[in-house]
Amino acid sequence: MTIEMFEKPLGMRDDFPLIAKQKADLRKQGTQLIERAGYELLQTPTLEYYETIGKISAISDDALFKLLDSQGKTLVLRPDMTSPIARVAASKLLREKMPIRLGYYSNVFRAQKREGGRPAEFEQMGVELIGDDSLYADAEVISLAWDILKELDVGSARTVIGHTRLLELILADFGLDAEQSGKVRELFVAKNGVGVEQLAKELPIPEGKLASFLKLMQATTVADWKQWINEENEEQRELYRDMERLEQLLGRNGLGDAVTFDISFSSHMTYYTGLVFEFYGAGSGFPLGSGGRYDGLMEQFGLQVGATGFGLRVDRLLESVTPEKAEQPHTLILFDEQNEQYAFDKAQQLRNSGKRVTLQYAPAVKALEPFTALFTEVIRGEELHNG
Amino acid sequence: MTIEMFEKPLGMRDDFPLIAKQKADLRKQGTQLIERAGYELLQTPTLEYYETIGKISAISDDALFKLLDSQGKTLVLRPDMTSPIARVAASKLLREKMPIRLGYYSNVFRAQKREGGRPAEFEQMGVELIGDDSLYADAEVISLAWDILKELDVGSARTVIGHTRLLELILADFGLDAEQSGKVRELFVAKNGVGVEQLAKELPIPEGKLASFLKLMQATTVADWKQWINEENEEQRELYRDMERLEQLLGRNGLGDAVTFDISFSSHMTYYTGLVFEFYGAGSGFPLGSGGRYDGLMEQFGLQVGATGFGLRVDRLLESVTPEKAEQPHTLILFDEQNEQYAFDKAQQLRNSGKRVTLQYAPAVKALEPFTALFTEVIRGEELHNG
Repeated sequence: MTIEMFEKPLGMRDDFPLIAKQKADLRKQGTQLIERAGYELLQTPTLEYYETIGKISAISDDALFKLLDSQGKTLVLRPDMTSPIARVAASKLLREKMPIRLGYYSNVFRAQKREGGRPAEFEQMGVELIGDDSLYADAEVISLAWDILKELDVGSARTVIGHTRLLELILADFGLDAEQSGKVRELFVAKNGVGVEQLAKELPIPEGKLASFLKLMQATTVADWKQWINEENEEQRELYRDMERLEQLLGRNGLGDAVTFDISFSSHMTYYTGLVFEFYGAGSGFPLGSGGRYDGLMEQFGLQVGATGFGLRVDRLLESVTPEKAEQPHTLILFDEQNEQYAFDKAQQLRNSGKRVTLQYAPAVKALEPFTALFTEVIRGEELHNG
Repeated sequence: MTIEMFEKPLGMRDDFPLIAKQKADLRKQGTQLIERAGYELLQTPTLEYYETIGKISAISDDALFKLLDSQGKTLVLRPDMTSPIARVAASKLLREKMPIRLGYYSNVFRAQKREGGRPAEFEQMGVELIGDDSLYADAEVISLAWDILKELDVGSARTVIGHTRLLELILADFGLDAEQSGKVRELFVAKNGVGVEQLAKELPIPEGKLASFLKLMQATTVADWKQWINEENEEQRELYRDMERLEQLLGRNGLGDAVTFDISFSSHMTYYTGLVFEFYGAGSGFPLGSGGRYDGLMEQFGLQVGATGFGLRVDRLLESVTPEKAEQPHTLILFDEQNEQYAFDKAQQLRNSGKRVTLQYAPAVKALEPFTALFTEVIRGEELHNG
């Protein structure tokens, strides 16, 4: 036996009982809200074809776990849930039932290169609303994610909303071509304000518009966006009106002040072509989850329908949620040959009343003291026999 | 777009909402019993080192999904849960708390070579009781599996119990060497009675003992086993006494007539060195689950402790369980701009009272008739507005 016997691959973790229990509780609370909102839970396989899901998923190729099947085809461990659900939704069975609401709680995989870094496997909980182009669909999924954050009692929860297409139009109005826009957006994704300022000097932005350009990262309400909207452009006008309406709907749905409308907000997930959003909580700079509209993804599966959804990261939710501190009651009944029948009957009786009971043959325990210390109550077989 | 866009790798399946829901219910019922019996649920990673888990797992090498990590080490998708849990139990954190009771509900992987064959990914629910050598531990895990089968209302549930070591001793008494014993056991695993009869002719079994040898596959109670026990051999006498005691304990725990003690019963899982068992239900020749004692496996992780456990296959349980037929109530509220606020308020109110409500902007639905047919109740926004 070597020490490697106890090792796990890079980025792989065991969920010990305490964490596993917290995750189970979180899963129960979250999926209940998802189901009540009319979503059907489903599960897709862990392995998918690289040609189908790997290429579409918007996860960079070197973060995919790849393997070959017995026929020489390349498989991937699913890197996200949006693409597999799009595959399912586009199948014959479901495409007649649009709009469809699908939810999931699933693990996804991202290959890691360094020790001590990010997890290579983590769980996501989310929904996809497919076949509804309306703004109500966007408001619904953002509000549902928000309801889950509130139900889980995430501290200082906050939503950031942007719009990929509107940002693209605005950047074009600053005189930027596609390549220049792409560079700016990369810096926006990285929230690198200093980088944006430096880059701005090299961009063909008219002198008089530079101050306005540098304010793109400071917007917090839809009203703030108005300064960049070209009223002559119908698409911009309509998208702006949509965002005003979305702000109203979300305010009504209880998000109110907890939403930041940040026109510079952009996602590295390339399939989000319109509305994009992220969720944050107290104590972590990493988003708890994200989502957006991905009409283009459905086209790749042959469907000309709108789609929107979100995914929340369970590992990060756990860090933002205060777990219940109360010790779970757990009774130990220690028995030996003389009182084994009594112990068994007592355990059955307590378990039937909903209690948690470990029934243990005492002579099999090597160290009784530390073992009994693990329980909130200890009953000895002799007590049952004499009592 | 090609048709392959909708394909999944060999043996991989989507769980559509109906099946996903049945599995979720089954998981809830089963894990609740597991927790009440004092087991802690845990989760191990999907990927493990081949050197650690792949080699130990007793799953044949060509059924393992293998891949290389960024450092060139071979990884496997976990083929079972017993070996990863043994790895966890042998870790510093838990080895001081023996006996430990660990439970799981997890997917496992087996590479398949043919289309239309067995699943390459399926879920198992089970427990491992580690650090308890006693017969009570065996009785506990068999009884717990049984309680789960009863709770799930599996029809005609049945348990088959054998003993690998005792069978080995008995076969030796028939004059068989290890190789000959191995051949006989392979035929026993395959339940190939005709094969056993043919092979018997080539084996060095004394003429007078042949009839007795051929009866090995017919035993159903521990008393039946007595005919093969050599009273001069202490190990055989003790193992036989253990089996008598186990039969009593299981009878007391409610298994009674539903247990077959089959001395010829043997497992292909090579780490089971003593007691072995399988569970069956109505309507399928495949076992619903299996288990046994695997003291030797813990030694590979440096621990000289006993261990016993079972795993149930969720896909096969689903086939043996009669799902609830009653349609789940699911309300649809259809709204438009004029009554959107009323619809939203109504949905919130119904959801808060525990109901399942889909809130849908009517103009976004392409085909209203088939869509509304999916729900048990339909409320139109106009009704709410006027009401």
